[in-house]
Amino acid sequence: MPLKVGRGAATPPFLVMDVIAAANARAAAQPAGAPGILRMEVGQPGLGAPQGAVDAAMRALQANAPMGYTEALGLPSLRARIARHYAEHYGASVPPARIAVTVGASGAFPLAFLAAFEAGDAIAMAAPFYPPYANILTALGMRPQILPCDAATRFQPTLAMLEALHPRPAGLIIASPCNPAGTMLAPEALAAIAAWCHAAGVRLISDEIYHGLTWGTVAESTAAALSPSAIVVNSFSKYWSMTGWRVGWLVLPEDLARPVERLAQNMFISAPHIAQVAAEAAMDCVAELEGRKAAYATSRALLLDGLPRAGIDRIAAADGAFYLWCDISALSNDSVAFTARLLAEAGIAATTGLDFDPGRGAHFMRLSYCGDAALIAEAPARIARFLGR
Amino acid sequence: MPLKVGRGAATPPFLVMDVIAAANARAAAQPAGAPGILRMEVGQPGLGAPQGAVDAAMRALQANAPMGYTEALGLPSLRARIARHYAEHYGASVPPARIAVTVGASGAFPLAFLAAFEAGDAIAMAAPFYPPYANILTALGMRPQILPCDAATRFQPTLAMLEALHPRPAGLIIASPCNPAGTMLAPEALAAIAAWCHAAGVRLISDEIYHGLTWGTVAESTAAALSPSAIVVNSFSKYWSMTGWRVGWLVLPEDLARPVERLAQNMFISAPHIAQVAAEAAMDCVAELEGRKAAYATSRALLLDGLPRAGIDRIAAADGAFYLWCDISALSNDSVAFTARLLAEAGIAATTGLDFDPGRGAHFMRLSYCGDAALIAEAPARIARFLGR
Repeated sequence: MPLKVGRGAATPPFLVMDVIAAANARAAAQPAGAPGILRMEVGQPGLGAPQGAVDAAMRALQANAPMGYTEALGLPSLRARIARHYAEHYGASVPPARIAVTVGASGAFPLAFLAAFEAGDAIAMAAPFYPPYANILTALGMRPQILPCDAATRFQPTLAMLEALHPRPAGLIIASPCNPAGTMLAPEALAAIAAWCHAAGVRLISDEIYHGLTWGTVAESTAAALSPSAIVVNSFSKYWSMTGWRVGWLVLPEDLARPVERLAQNMFISAPHIAQVAAEAAMDCVAELEGRKAAYATSRALLLDGLPRAGIDRIAAADGAFYLWCDISALSNDSVAFTARLLAEAGIAATTGLDFDPGRGAHFMRLSYCGDAALIAEAPARIARFLGR
Repeated sequence: MPLKVGRGAATPPFLVMDVIAAANARAAAQPAGAPGILRMEVGQPGLGAPQGAVDAAMRALQANAPMGYTEALGLPSLRARIARHYAEHYGASVPPARIAVTVGASGAFPLAFLAAFEAGDAIAMAAPFYPPYANILTALGMRPQILPCDAATRFQPTLAMLEALHPRPAGLIIASPCNPAGTMLAPEALAAIAAWCHAAGVRLISDEIYHGLTWGTVAESTAAALSPSAIVVNSFSKYWSMTGWRVGWLVLPEDLARPVERLAQNMFISAPHIAQVAAEAAMDCVAELEGRKAAYATSRALLLDGLPRAGIDRIAAADGAFYLWCDISALSNDSVAFTARLLAEAGIAATTGLDFDPGRGAHFMRLSYCGDAALIAEAPARIARFLGR
């Protein structure tokens, strides 16, 4: 008898992972002395965890700490430290009991989705969006409901779009700053959306993974301070530069804290112990992390100045994160081919917009500027040559 | 409007996590000089990762390795090392392309279940069983189909039980050695089940997490060598003692390798980088790990000798893992109350059988012997006093 394959087997790839592989291959094939490949495809800070985090991990290993399972919701000291972060950074009161440490933000999504929704439920989100939102929901039998957004609303959903949804979705995912567009919701817009969701019985999931990386154009606010029913997702991967350590967190409404604990006991047991130790220390590495942020800011300014003159002149409002969402429709109607040529001819790895917006992404590409600032500085000149300017 | 809560919110707890919390509280409340609590409730080796694994992690940190995301299916060198393990340990040929490194065995189950099954599918398993099998399946909308097993079949399913299932389930989970019973399937029984599953179109998932920890009563064999359609789950948490590092793996049939890669890209991005570095080194720490195994063997022999005389005389065949599955029906018909008294009066933390067999677990308890051998040696005398022998 033929063996069954589940519907989850048809999950689309997260294309950027394939782009990374192509850029790796291209970099390995470069002859010695050739110009390097500018890695602008990956949403991963060029530098690793801050030194204080690495030191804390090494101290724990040197002390022969056994690094066993932690509590399913995380080390109590880390949960307390995250709670303090809400007080200090946002002036928000979030008790540690509502904080769940997770295996990155990736591990947070299945817990949040399974606790809040069930198969068949519709969950709304703006397009362009972070592909795993839709892919995880679909694998779990839930239905992503896409709200096409554009530069007119900073690629963010509006209250009017939500009010127009009939029937109402079970949930809404927002991200501010968002990936790939790097745009933000204004605090009053976020507050209005949070209030509407709470009143309408729509579970709000606020992805705040790029908080800390905002550039002053829009103020940062957390849904944790705006709604008692919202779920907040965050991670140590971006501001704290700890991608491969796999540690993030959820802020949960009271009614979902114990359900998420039970799901986490079964599905994860715990987040990695050493990563939790390192993450707690990372939260005190302010000077080092602010230094990195300053380097991203430099790259951002340089690109926002240089790219338009090089021929890339339709860029979404770069409010936060470390991405530029570039409308290349004046240059190409096939961003897969365009980014492939950009890699082959200009040595710049970029991500096709199709990963983030299956409908309109052929006209967009995402450039990431969290890599080496000195290399990124070469991008405008390379692109100008590539475009024949 | 009231906010929706998903069906996954009703996931049962993994009770042993709550037992651990009770034992922690009891240990913290012991007056100085009082006898310690014997931690026989937790399936976690008393010692941490082997020294070679810790050293490899420290070297990587000292060298300032950035510890970014790895490939979604894991570091190529670790996948190759695991493939070599199949050749050396089992004489089996498993190409690295069919190995997926996961966030522990816990992270492997959702990937395997979502790739192989869909909502509504029935997946068979013996009872008693590892609770997250059923709890994860249920959270994903799948249906655990329980096959009650007892000492007559070593608490393992038989071909006759499978042949009697109409309609046939979509899948079968086996574990040899199993948790909680510590029993194994004979190689010929495993081969027959694997062949039947393949012919019958039933996807076999073989949990081999306790391989390496077997005591000579039954030979160890891997489903990876017996069936082209089976999925094998394994982990560095047990033999390799790396619980809190969160790293395990899947051996996948060819048709599921790319689907699992896509699911992993979306749901995990990658397993923790530093844990993968440590795990690869752990595979070469043979002498240290065999020394630990010898300590478990000593504890096992001492308990199998002393417990019957202390009054616990109905113990499942202790073929592997580090558990004794004790039928206490002659002593109590309420293993929750029994294990609570055992903790309060004898200072022994044990796990109620209800976690592993909701139907019959009130008559069973699980004792783990992977903790400190010198402490575990006290167990028979404490239990004899507790039972008034």
